[in-house]
Parts: sequence; structure tokens; C-alpha cells
Amino acid sequence: MHTYSVRKVGVVGATGYSGVELVRRLANHPGADLVAAMGSAGSEPRRIPALRQIWDESVVPLDLDRLAALDAVFLAVPDTLAAEVGPALAARGPRVFDLSGAFRLRDKALRNRWYPHSPDPELPVTYGLTERYREELGEARLVACAGCYPTAAILSLQPLVAAGLLEPGIIVDAKSGVSGAGKTPTERTHFSEIHGSMAAYGLFSHRHGAEIEQEVGTDVTFVPHLVPLDRGILETIYARLRPGASAEDVTATLQAAYAGAAFVRLTGADLPEIKHVAHTNFCDIGWRVSPDGRQLVMVACIDNLVKGAAGQAIQNFNVAFGFPEALGLN
Amino acid sequence: MHTYSVRKVGVVGATGYSGVELVRRLANHPGADLVAAMGSAGSEPRRIPALRQIWDESVVPLDLDRLAALDAVFLAVPDTLAAEVGPALAARGPRVFDLSGAFRLRDKALRNRWYPHSPDPELPVTYGLTERYREELGEARLVACAGCYPTAAILSLQPLVAAGLLEPGIIVDAKSGVSGAGKTPTERTHFSEIHGSMAAYGLFSHRHGAEIEQEVGTDVTFVPHLVPLDRGILETIYARLRPGASAEDVTATLQAAYAGAAFVRLTGADLPEIKHVAHTNFCDIGWRVSPDGRQLVMVACIDNLVKGAAGQAIQNFNVAFGFPEALGLN
Amino acid sequence: MHTYSVRKVGVVGATGYSGVELVRRLANHPGADLVAAMGSAGSEPRRIPALRQIWDESVVPLDLDRLAALDAVFLAVPDTLAAEVGPALAARGPRVFDLSGAFRLRDKALRNRWYPHSPDPELPVTYGLTERYREELGEARLVACAGCYPTAAILSLQPLVAAGLLEPGIIVDAKSGVSGAGKTPTERTHFSEIHGSMAAYGLFSHRHGAEIEQEVGTDVTFVPHLVPLDRGILETIYARLRPGASAEDVTATLQAAYAGAAFVRLTGADLPEIKHVAHTNFCDIGWRVSPDGRQLVMVACIDNLVKGAAGQAIQNFNVAFGFPEALGLN
Amino acid sequence: MHTYSVRKVGVVGATGYSGVELVRRLANHPGADLVAAMGSAGSEPRRIPALRQIWDESVVPLDLDRLAALDAVFLAVPDTLAAEVGPALAARGPRVFDLSGAFRLRDKALRNRWYPHSPDPELPVTYGLTERYREELGEARLVACAGCYPTAAILSLQPLVAAGLLEPGIIVDAKSGVSGAGKTPTERTHFSEIHGSMAAYGLFSHRHGAEIEQEVGTDVTFVPHLVPLDRGILETIYARLRPGASAEDVTATLQAAYAGAAFVRLTGADLPEIKHVAHTNFCDIGWRVSPDGRQLVMVACIDNLVKGAAGQAIQNFNVAFGFPEALGLN
Repeated sequence: MHTYSVRKVGVVGATGYSGVELVRRLANHPGADLVAAMGSAGSEPRRIPALRQIWDESVVPLDLDRLAALDAVFLAVPDTLAAEVGPALAARGPRVFDLSGAFRLRDKALRNRWYPHSPDPELPVTYGLTERYREELGEARLVACAGCYPTAAILSLQPLVAAGLLEPGIIVDAKSGVSGAGKTPTERTHFSEIHGSMAAYGLFSHRHGAEIEQEVGTDVTFVPHLVPLDRGILETIYARLRPGASAEDVTATLQAAYAGAAFVRLTGADLPEIKHVAHTNFCDIGWRVSPDGRQLVMVACIDNLVKGAAGQAIQNFNVAFGFPEALGLN
Repeated sequence: MHTYSVRKVGVVGATGYSGVELVRRLANHPGADLVAAMGSAGSEPRRIPALRQIWDESVVPLDLDRLAALDAVFLAVPDTLAAEVGPALAARGPRVFDLSGAFRLRDKALRNRWYPHSPDPELPVTYGLTERYREELGEARLVACAGCYPTAAILSLQPLVAAGLLEPGIIVDAKSGVSGAGKTPTERTHFSEIHGSMAAYGLFSHRHGAEIEQEVGTDVTFVPHLVPLDRGILETIYARLRPGASAEDVTATLQAAYAGAAFVRLTGADLPEIKHVAHTNFCDIGWRVSPDGRQLVMVACIDNLVKGAAGQAIQNFNVAFGFPEALGLN
Repeated sequence: MHTYSVRKVGVVGATGYSGVELVRRLANHPGADLVAAMGSAGSEPRRIPALRQIWDESVVPLDLDRLAALDAVFLAVPDTLAAEVGPALAARGPRVFDLSGAFRLRDKALRNRWYPHSPDPELPVTYGLTERYREELGEARLVACAGCYPTAAILSLQPLVAAGLLEPGIIVDAKSGVSGAGKTPTERTHFSEIHGSMAAYGLFSHRHGAEIEQEVGTDVTFVPHLVPLDRGILETIYARLRPGASAEDVTATLQAAYAGAAFVRLTGADLPEIKHVAHTNFCDIGWRVSPDGRQLVMVACIDNLVKGAAGQAIQNFNVAFGFPEALGLN
Repeated sequence: MHTYSVRKVGVVGATGYSGVELVRRLANHPGADLVAAMGSAGSEPRRIPALRQIWDESVVPLDLDRLAALDAVFLAVPDTLAAEVGPALAARGPRVFDLSGAFRLRDKALRNRWYPHSPDPELPVTYGLTERYREELGEARLVACAGCYPTAAILSLQPLVAAGLLEPGIIVDAKSGVSGAGKTPTERTHFSEIHGSMAAYGLFSHRHGAEIEQEVGTDVTFVPHLVPLDRGILETIYARLRPGASAEDVTATLQAAYAGAAFVRLTGADLPEIKHVAHTNFCDIGWRVSPDGRQLVMVACIDNLVKGAAGQAIQNFNVAFGFPEALGLN
């Protein structure tokens, strides 16, 4: 067993769904000393019932000076708040792992459109999908952790698009559990509106579409749906193979991309299910090609609160600080 | 087939869960002409998507003058609003079927404690549980329809207590679907708080406890729980048989009480399930006695939005106006 | 109010999910005298707890001679049994409404592939989707009621394909509640396998794909998924508009196709939700076109046990016998 | 960080719900070398999809000789099989942690009634509830791990009964998720039978009743219910305080009993919820006393697959072999 040089870390937004997941995992992380879990500025100190005997401190109000003295800060807050405090904190010392979308879009026009409160970042931003940006994480100051929907879509599509295997006209039909909508009570997230029901939303207007396109490098039609479960995303992805591209090319390309990957499991023709990834940091990816060899259908699953949020951030943290990639994530 | 003299009716609170259920059923009721469905005062006119081609009018703002001209008004609003408009409307002409708790408690001190906004009613109030107060409904002006939890408990217990079969110390362990908590979004009713979970609430402080005790005629320990389903209540009721009382007495008493009842189904030793009553106006009641013959366990199920709310109100309306009791309820 | 000449009807497969739904609705249908509800040959007589006081007869073993004397028989049985008894019964007198897929495929080769136990029918078969084959139903002897997935897909796509608005390469991403998988317990339908999970299945191998293609008249990529709810189907349909075709063309074509339709509700840009159609015979269809005007996304919802099974069959029965189309379906 | 002397362990019944949970946790347990995961005799080798990259071995057929060479064997099999192989294995060397009920009842007559296939054990059996039998576990050969329902009930009631605080006539109203019913598909565990429903079962005939009474030391009325969630048990417990006993006595007794307990969390008047214990080894216990000081209501929650099964067994294993009690359980 190894001994790790422990890093002082803090969590902002500790009472939200991703925040609780971060606190739970960081409290047991051998390389992290969780110094503070904070809510919003001026919030009442509050205990988290589910974390009794795991993390017995109170969630305290936001205190930027205290955070500035830490090695790493995780932001699990709305993008408007992250836009404000993320760069400020990163400039003062801590490395910042931002779970919001505030700085994920590199293109200024797109960022202004989808995240109008986000300024131009004054320090370089690393897109926080470990499998793609591992090399940059060692020096990263501000890590814009990948969104939940984009994580599954990018891990599935990016190697195939980069290899030139797919025709334009990709469709991502995404189904998400309700925790992805956040903890604020709304009519949409009322139990009785979701139970026994299902709906599409955000058609042609969900900002994760631009994020997927940025990282995949081509246009996609992205349609998210809310399904009656708490945590988990399943994406069904439709693409035509280019003339000359075969099912074997798809398999070889994906296997090459994820050989040795700690958290991507290729399931081939056995299509993945949300149940298999819930409460884990895995992204499971399966696929099949139609009998005529032209239509590719992929299915990818993650837990939106783990690989799609808290686990992804810790995975980035591990690589950034030189810990084993899976530390604290099993 | 019969022709009915049709009554002009209105619904207030038409966008809530009970209100939509009322509108859906009254729109198809052969004895009702649904003249108006209203929301709160000053609310925006609003269509109900689920009712397209069933009730294509808009839900309009509250208009007491318009309601005063009708034969019957159904109030599916919070008890504070019902306390205000219920007696006023009943005094002006329409017979009022109030689904709230505003006037259910006859004892003034209890009413002041649990419903502090309810005035002393100036006209007589009929407790709206058809099976018990059928005779009074013909003349009733203001009907305080029975609460959801009380309906299942009273139908189960009242005949046995009246027959002197039970010892004191009755326990009602009640489990309810989430629609019973109303449509207003709260942290408690967020999908992710309920899915995969379950909790007791309102221990020693739920006002339905007093309502049950009033109608059953003895003290009960009443503990409600929220379970992860949309509609339905299941109550497990524990009572000791008095010395001399037997399982046969229980059976005979219940069968006598509900011989010919349109909406009480006695299932005997085959305990009822919520699935069997969902979307119906039935109350199913089953029971068993322990091998030593002393401990009675009853299980009662209703759909909280039908027999526990909208269906119950229409059943009362039917009897009050001389329609067949089950009209529009199948 | 009208008086209807009542038809003697029977149900086979009365204990399955579609069968119970048929019995419940036929027991209250003003034009139907439900003479017998049957199970399989040699099955034990059995009561249906949910139907006490609605249909108090027992479900009896299959008795073809008794059925032969009726006006209409509904078959809610596996396609292998329907293949055997459907044509035999239709030849003896009753008009047969078959809810299985046994005779839905007109092409002999396709039928042999997907329903190898189905013989070539000796009498003409009517595909039982009322909205499309209304004219044929008056004379129909054997009605092969449309499948659940196909109903939503065909109602959405057929008018647009017929109008030449869509390019090839249509995708139907379908999500179904679990009752669609039938009542036989399997590992796939175990509560704990479905709750909190979701999965695609039947990829490139579900026989409803051929049925959709037959009625829509073009190839589709059809991918069904199982979602954690009991009843309801939501289909998200992706198609490219042909050059020259516009969003307005889509709207006009659909409105023309369903003007006055009793059970198709066009919701336009307000996308439908399963909750709005559950326990009804409606098919709700909404759609949007991408900002560049080329990508059409449609969303269609039905209750798989009503418009996708029992309700559809009764709708066909109503038209076949000259009853109002919606009789017994509200 | 410590280094542990690692023990060779095996799991029998590795494909069931408790078995998968055992394998997942033992594969990451610093004190356990998981040598083999087995199914039933003659079963096909089979991989567990959810455990890819966690435990990549196949589940192999039962091989008693191979198990006999290990330090510890976990049995997650039906009680009939555990009755056969548990004592045999324990006699040959390994310490056996039996998750079934085969040897939980000490009274021969009760055991013969509820577990008729269980022989009289030839070696001493330790009841496997760590909090109560910690001292005996160090020498234990055959550990009959506590049942899921009994765990929550015994931890709540035993200290209070032992202190003489409660009157006779205790009621345990228990609600369980469906994974507690096991993985074998049955009509009862079909998704569509459970979703949107709830039912009591096993009234006066569930064998966990005798187990609770054995460990609590008094009679209880035990009524289990199935609720629509996957994992978790919530028990609402009703008892009258003896004259002279107060709410403060209850609090003091429970606090004394569980001071320093690793996995019992006393929540006092904040009643616990299943959500807070899901996927953990905690038992949360809350309680309130009625305003008149006589009626005690307790609420206890566990995850039936963790503290009610796999976690409990590992907790016993840890104490039996001298590991820290919580090793591998966080």
C-alpha cells in the first residue's frame, strides 16, 4: 500500500446532488484532506444527514479567502457563480475543478451565446475529460470538467469521427435521470410529473449540444429526455458509416482509443445498461452495425453524478496531482 | 338508458392534481354541465394539456359571481381559500363540495387548532363520506368531503369501533403516493428525494389524525409515510380485539356495514393492493386475525385522487342531487 | 342519449395486461355484452381481483365452440395461439380482433420470417389501425390490430412519407414501459432489473420494425428501449426534410391527415409527454424543425395498453359495427 | 496506512443480488483475496456485466473442495443449500458466513418449523449481528448472519426491551424494496406488479418474525410490505412505554447502546429515510414519543443488500479476523 502526499481541498456547492457526491468521495479519498465544504455566500451552516459519520462537519457559507489557501477547489455551483469565482480562485493559487459549464466552450461567440455571464477567461482553461486531455491536466489551473451528456457522447463519437469513419448527420438521443436537473424544486422535477411519464426537452436549444460538437468536431442533432429514475444517462447514437468504413473499423478504433482505460468499458454487441454503471465512474459503450453494414447504433451509459460530475472531477484531480487515476473512485 | 336532468357545475382549483381529476370526470358526467373551471383569483387563463379534446376550455381566474349562479361548485383549493369562499358561495345558492379540510372538524377547539383560518361555519356542514352520511347529503349545502387518509381509516375502523369489537390503542400506519402532497414544488416532492427512498412524516402532528378520531370515535396513533409512487394510499391498521370478540365478529360486522356498497370492496384474507384501486373510486379492505385470535391487522387501499378526493366529491354530488351513486365514476 | 344494438363479445387471454384492460372496458361498453372472458385451454377458472364489482365472472378455459356463437372475439394471446385460433374463429362467424402480430405482415416472406407459426390466412385480413383503414373495417372479418410501437410511428410518419416530404434514413428511437413486455415473469422484467435502469433491446431484430416499414412505406432504423415505468410509449423520430419541403408543409400535412380525428391530438411545438396519454386512447404527436429547416424531430406518445392494444381494438370494433368511434373509450 | 494479512475468501451464490454486492466489495477489500466466486453446482461459468474491470473472473460452478482450502466462505444461497453446505464447509476449515436463515433460529422446534431442511448444527452457531455478538465472533466457525428485516428491528428494540422500558404488544410495520425478494423472476416481482403499487405480504407467516422475537426477547406483530423501490428497508415500530419509563430513558438507553458504533447512527427526532442509507452499511434509527409520553414510535432504515446482507457479512468477517470493523465498507 502506498502513502500519498495529501492535498488540501475544498468543495463549493456541497448541498447539491453533485456536491454531496463530491464530499462523500473526497472525505474517503486517501490523497485529499477535505478542509471545507461550503454553500453559497451567506447561507446557513447545515449538516448533510446522509453524510453523518462520513463527513460530520457543517456546510459553511462561501469564504473565498479560506479557499484561496487550499491546493484544490471543486466548484459544484451554477455556471453564473462559477463564472465569477472560478477564475478568481485559480488566479490566487488553488487549482480549480469547475463542474459547471461556465468555461467549457472555447469559441467566444458560442460561449457568449450559451453562457452569457462567463467572461473571457484570463488564464488557460483545460477541458476536463481525462481520457482526452490527460497530458494537459498536469499543468492545468482551471479545469472545465466535461458535462454529463457530453461525456457519454464524446467518449463514444470522438475517436470514430477523428478516424473519418462517420458520415455527417449524427444523432444523439439522450435519456437522463432527474438528478441531472439539479436540486432546486420545479414543476418539471416534481415527483408526480416524472413518475410514470417521460418527455423530451431542450430540443435544438440545450447548451450541451454545442459542447458535444466542439469536442467531437462535427455537427450533431442532440435531443435530451427526462426519464423516471434518479441517476444515470443512456445515450443512443445514430450514425452512417462512410463508404469503405466497416464494423471492424469501428471496433478496432474504439479498442485502440480505450486500451487500458481505467473508466471506459467497451461492451461490444452487448449493449450497456444504466444499472451497470450506477454509482460508479465507468462509461460503458456498446455498438452494433446494421446487417447491410451502413448504419451504426451506439449505446453509452454513465452515472451523471459520478462520471458525469463528481467522479469525473476527482479523476481529473487525480491526474492533475499525480495520484493514481482511480484513487478514491472504486 | 336514462336521461338525467343536468346540473350546472363549476370547479375551483382546476389545475391541481385533484382539480384535473375533477374536470376530467365532470366533463364526461351525464348529469353535469361543466360550465367553468377556475384557478385562483387573477391567475392567467391556462389550458390543461392532458385534457385536450376532453375539456377544451381554458381554466379561468376565480369569479365568485359566476359561480354563484351554478347548481354545484367543487372546491379543490387550499383550506385557507376554501375557508373563505366555501360558506360564502353556499350562502348564495350553489351547493358546495369542498375537498379541503377547512370544515371537516366539528369540534371548535380542534378546528381552531388544525385549521386556524376556518371561521365557525354559519350553515350546517355535512361530512362528505357517502357511506356514512348518505341520509344527510340530500339536504346538504356545504359538504366537507372526507380527507384521503381518513377515508381509508374510517371505512375500515368505524363499524368495528361502533360494534365495540376493538380495544383502545389503535394504530394506523399509512403510506401515500406523492400526489397527495399537492402540486406545489418543494424539496420534499422533488423526484430525486422520493425515488428509491421512503420516509415517515408528520408524526403526532398531521391534522388527519384528529379527523380520523372524530369519525371513528376513539383515539388512534396515526403515522403517515411518503412512498415512491404517484397515486394511491395503503393503510395498515393494528388493533386488539376485545375479550369475547372474534374474527367472525369482525367479518360479520364489516359485511353488514358494506352490503351493497357501490365503492367498498371487502377482500377478506386476500389483502388489497394499491394497483387494484388505482384510477378507481373503490376502497378495498382486507383483514386477518392472528392465530391466537387477539390481534387484528387490516389493510385498506384507495386512490387518493379518486376515492380520496375527486371521486369522493362526485359520489357525494351524485347522492346529493339524486343521481345514481356511481354515475360518471366507472 | 342513444340506445345501441348490443353485440355479444368474448375475450381470450383475459388475465394478461391487455386482456384485463379489454375486460374492464368491454364490461362498461354500452354496445357490448361481454359473454365470456377466457384464458388458455385447460386453465383453471380464475377471478381478477382488480375487476371485482366491475366484472365478477371468472375467467374460464378457452372454449372455441362457445366463442363461435358470438358477434365478436378479441384475442389478447401470444401470436402462436392467435395464428391457430384467429382464422378458425373468423371462418365460423364472429368477427375477430386479434391484438397479436400473427397476421399483421402482408408480405408472405416477411411473415414467415417474423411469425413462422402464422399460416397464410384464408380470408382477407384488415390491418387494424382505425385512422388508416376505417373504410375497410365495415366488412372486415379478421382484424390484425396494429402493434404498440407501430401505432405511434405510423400515425406520425405515414402522412409525411405519403406526401413525399421526407428523405430516406428515418430513425425511430422508441421508449416503452414494461407492461409492453407482457406478464410472464422473466429476468428482464424483474422489478430490480428495471428500476433505476434503462436499456436498448432488439436492435435490428425487433419484428415491429417490419410492421412500421410496411405501413409507412419506407425503411426505418427502429431501436426500442425499456424504461422504468409501467405503461406508455414515447417515440422520438428523426427525419431529414427533402429539398423544398418546409416546416409549414409538415404542419399542414399532419393537420389535414388528422382533422376531426377522435384520438390523434397534434400538439405542435409543445412536445407530448407520456403522462398526458396514460390510461387514454389518445396518440399525441408533436414536432419541431431545426433552425436550418432541414432536420425534423417528432415525438409521439401513446398508452401501449390502450391505443397500443385494448383501446385500439375497441376503436376498431366500434367502427366495424357502426358504433360511434369513441364509444366506451372515454 | 496499514498493511493487512490477507485472507483467502470465496463467495457462493455470486450471481444473486447479495452475491454481486459481496463480490464487488470483497474484490476491493484490503484484507481479502477473493479466490473464487461460485454459482450452483453444475451451473455454466458466467461473467457479471456490472463487475467488468472490478472482478473479471467468471462465476464458476460450486466446488466444495476448492472452498475447503480457503480462510472464509460467504454463502449467499437459498437456505436449503446453505443448510447442506454450511456446516460441512465449516467442519473442514473455512469460517463460514452464511447470509441465509438456515441456522439463525436457536430453538429447535422453531427452526424445524421455519427451516425444515436445516439439520441440528453439529458445531456452535454465532448469530451474525456484529453490534450484539462482537465478542463471540473472534472464535466463530459458522456465522448465521442476521436477516434484513430483523437487523433493523433488533438494533432498534433490543436495548429498550433489555432495559425493561417497553410494554408487551410491540408492532413492527416493515417496508422493503424488491431486491429483498431475490432475483428469481416471479409474478410478485414483475416490474408492472410493483410499479405504482404496494402490498402487505406474509402476514403472521413470515419467518423473520420468529428471528426478531428470538433476539429481542419478546413477542412482536411483524407485517412486511413490498414497496416500489429496489433496495432499502424502512421499519416503523410501535411500542407503549411502561409506567415510569420516559422519552429520556429511551434516548439514554439507545445512546449508551450505540456509543462509538461504526454503523448505527441515532438520528433522534429527525426520522431517517431510506435515501440516506442506500448503498451504505449504516442502520439509521430515529424515534419520537407522543405528547402524553406513552406511545413510542421508532423508524429504522437500512440497505437490505448491505447492512441487511453483504455488508453485514463483511462486518462480521472483519471482526472475526481482527480487521478494523469498517474495512472495505466505506
